[in-house]
Amino acid sequence: METHAYELESECFDVERIAELGGEAVVRGGRHLFDRLPEALSGVSRVGVIGWGSQGAAQARNLRDSLSGGGIQVSVGLRKGSASTDAARRFGFSEADGSLAEMFDVIRRCELVVLLISDAAQAQLHTRIFDALRPGTTLALSHGFLGAYLDGIGGAFPEDVDVIAVCPKGMGPSVRRLYEQGSGINCSVAIEQNVTGRAGERALAWAVALGAPWCFGTTLESEARSDIFGERGILIGGLHGMVEALYRWHLVGGDSPEAAFIAASECITGPISEMISRAGPLGLYEALEPKQRHRFELAYALAYGPLRAILAEIYDEVALGNEIRSVIAAHGRLDAHPLSNVEGSAMWQVAARVRAERADEAPAAIDATSAGIYCAGMLAQVDELIEHGHPCSEVVNESIIEAVDSLNPYMHAKGVAHMVDGCSMTARLGARRWAPRFDYALSQQVLPWLCENVTPDRSLVERFLAHPIHQSFSACAALRPPGSIRVDV
Amino acid sequence: METHAYELESECFDVERIAELGGEAVVRGGRHLFDRLPEALSGVSRVGVIGWGSQGAAQARNLRDSLSGGGIQVSVGLRKGSASTDAARRFGFSEADGSLAEMFDVIRRCELVVLLISDAAQAQLHTRIFDALRPGTTLALSHGFLGAYLDGIGGAFPEDVDVIAVCPKGMGPSVRRLYEQGSGINCSVAIEQNVTGRAGERALAWAVALGAPWCFGTTLESEARSDIFGERGILIGGLHGMVEALYRWHLVGGDSPEAAFIAASECITGPISEMISRAGPLGLYEALEPKQRHRFELAYALAYGPLRAILAEIYDEVALGNEIRSVIAAHGRLDAHPLSNVEGSAMWQVAARVRAERADEAPAAIDATSAGIYCAGMLAQVDELIEHGHPCSEVVNESIIEAVDSLNPYMHAKGVAHMVDGCSMTARLGARRWAPRFDYALSQQVLPWLCENVTPDRSLVERFLAHPIHQSFSACAALRPPGSIRVDV
Repeated sequence: METHAYELESECFDVERIAELGGEAVVRGGRHLFDRLPEALSGVSRVGVIGWGSQGAAQARNLRDSLSGGGIQVSVGLRKGSASTDAARRFGFSEADGSLAEMFDVIRRCELVVLLISDAAQAQLHTRIFDALRPGTTLALSHGFLGAYLDGIGGAFPEDVDVIAVCPKGMGPSVRRLYEQGSGINCSVAIEQNVTGRAGERALAWAVALGAPWCFGTTLESEARSDIFGERGILIGGLHGMVEALYRWHLVGGDSPEAAFIAASECITGPISEMISRAGPLGLYEALEPKQRHRFELAYALAYGPLRAILAEIYDEVALGNEIRSVIAAHGRLDAHPLSNVEGSAMWQVAARVRAERADEAPAAIDATSAGIYCAGMLAQVDELIEHGHPCSEVVNESIIEAVDSLNPYMHAKGVAHMVDGCSMTARLGARRWAPRFDYALSQQVLPWLCENVTPDRSLVERFLAHPIHQSFSACAALRPPGSIRVDV
Repeated sequence: METHAYELESECFDVERIAELGGEAVVRGGRHLFDRLPEALSGVSRVGVIGWGSQGAAQARNLRDSLSGGGIQVSVGLRKGSASTDAARRFGFSEADGSLAEMFDVIRRCELVVLLISDAAQAQLHTRIFDALRPGTTLALSHGFLGAYLDGIGGAFPEDVDVIAVCPKGMGPSVRRLYEQGSGINCSVAIEQNVTGRAGERALAWAVALGAPWCFGTTLESEARSDIFGERGILIGGLHGMVEALYRWHLVGGDSPEAAFIAASECITGPISEMISRAGPLGLYEALEPKQRHRFELAYALAYGPLRAILAEIYDEVALGNEIRSVIAAHGRLDAHPLSNVEGSAMWQVAARVRAERADEAPAAIDATSAGIYCAGMLAQVDELIEHGHPCSEVVNESIIEAVDSLNPYMHAKGVAHMVDGCSMTARLGARRWAPRFDYALSQQVLPWLCENVTPDRSLVERFLAHPIHQSFSACAALRPPGSIRVDV
């Protein structure tokens, strides 16, 4: 148990505890709390959102809307000559009233600086950014990369500023769309440094202003680890390796490419994800016929150990800092060795045909073997995060909800390979590194033994059936906003 | 250009320079020099060989035989109750005359301590070993692991001892067998610390006493990097990934499992290796018919870039210390997640059948595609090592000669998977980590495009044909001992 939740506390917002999440403290948000924001943001007269990527565009607009009339100006800071300048102008940020300016000017004059430029830009510019922060500024991040990066190079945040994080549990476009729909998107909140004594209230105010219906507590390190680990694991890398191995296995077994793709990939990103989203991993299992349950159990019991071993290795690599050091080194190789795309391979050409011919009314049937293997990977990731002391809400969000509500629907629409090729460079490099390891683990240790006369290890199945994560999933699922967090594609 | 050769120099032995190796200094050994050993080892009256693994058993016997009559005692040091005690006794080391004793007793009383226990034991025991070394002792290693390990944990060698390395270019059994046959095995020599002022002469004396016909200069860091890199690359991990990808490609193309295995693996570990051993990579190419040359060129040109990208990543990971940190962390996971074997998979069961039915008189024909891909990996490794400033002899030895003279013949006899499962834990973990990456690189970026209407990038082929490594290979090959360095199996 190495990492711990930041225990949410507040004088401006109400803290509740949720028994099914191990008594975790949470804060409920909502529009009725917007009038408390100026008090919670006491000392902040200017909020600067740096960057206009998908998070930047969404957060700047949400913050401006939520804070309007409260006397706090929200400005967008961009690189000089940024290609996003026109887009920011179109949404009403303007040089004339000071709400659009050069990024370092914005950083210098704001009391709350929300840093939403890319990982690569954070790594490249962090020294200049730190120099521009006035003492007592609150530096605000939306994921843990920069903290992990500083660890990797032996650096540190400036000692005289607050460092907080608010991490929305979905991609930028969902952050805006659900805000407009009135439901908002859940966030986790971390306090890394608190020199003003106001860091906790400012972080919660930022989350509430983004529209979060619920806020969970974590730490910057816990968030960074679970984020970098999760995308290498079941969220992207693990899923990619699984569907490649399953597709090949079905092909060699005599299936047509289309049938193989449907059993291997289509049914995971489609009906299996939908069922887990509605009813959790246990609900997926319970919806299976008895004969299918047997196939699920066999696949689950065979796959859990090999997949857990890879996930344990990934966790160690992340905790050691190896993954971040690798990402930094990889950026230095991109000119000499540009990354190829995964999407051009034969399997993903079949995928495009299958998507084009998809019939909305008749989704693919659930393949019980694919379901068992996918759930084994998901539960192995859950167990690995629990073993390392991550807060219960983080375990559920980074292993289950983000997969089935956000990433899998996106991949179902566009393809797993499209996601691998198009995600952030940190995620992309990690997914490419680890997918083949999941593939080999399944191809060598699992798929060859999936014949009928193998008896599954019942203890693993019993552990699955009785796993406390099912109750935690239900609790977290009940806190989900009513709208879908998936990105429209 | 980060790493450099140790420039060999000596007053006891003759230093020569070899133009074809970029003017590298080398020292010629031989039995006629054994009478110079006492002078070169001035100040050493007791040599302790710690450990009785394959290197320990071979080196202890060679050193004793070479130093006999010179007044220098060679002792073997083992853990109390070591299972190797009887074996050491059988070969004439005995408690009675002090030539067999508890390892720390031996370490404390010897002036030259040759540390040949396993990597894991070195990591576990290094503090106690360092404490037992008297000031002015010469600590002698046979590969660079311990130096890389100390870097990884932020440790260091004791400041008051010499640290040298002599690394035989072959496994322990070959070190003994070739000594007995009179030819001996080449060694690289490194001086890491020289507090006595005698480290250089002692290292060369040790190498000559082992029977080395030629000694090359390197540094401990250069040796460690090339060693850890090479086994993850073409020597084990790269080869494993290549033959897995090629086998599957032939299977999907309609070949029988046996035919697929012969084209993918058998022909690389067999005739391709033999041809390279005799005539170098260029000689292999020149022996092909025109139509086969075209297939070789296409495969080479397509594979070089993707394989080089993986090798560049491996080199960075090794240089960053990530690989060693991973190995250390992996040892901590072995109880919870024991390593599975690769050898049980379907491909390697086919391999066993193919080996059993092998006809000595008719070796497998050379598959030009496999040859092109294998040479692309080999040359990519050569170029990566050259780019990082490794001495020319080290580049040739770690990329070509160790492969075709030592490891491939062993794998041809026992199977690539047998090698992966049976090599040192450092090599095994690395091979398992990287083989799937080579596999995916070939499966995604190379094999699908090997149809006849693709035109190879001639510039890569021209670079291969004109590569200076061919001349360096010939120079190093001419220095090889006449006997085979392969292990009899």
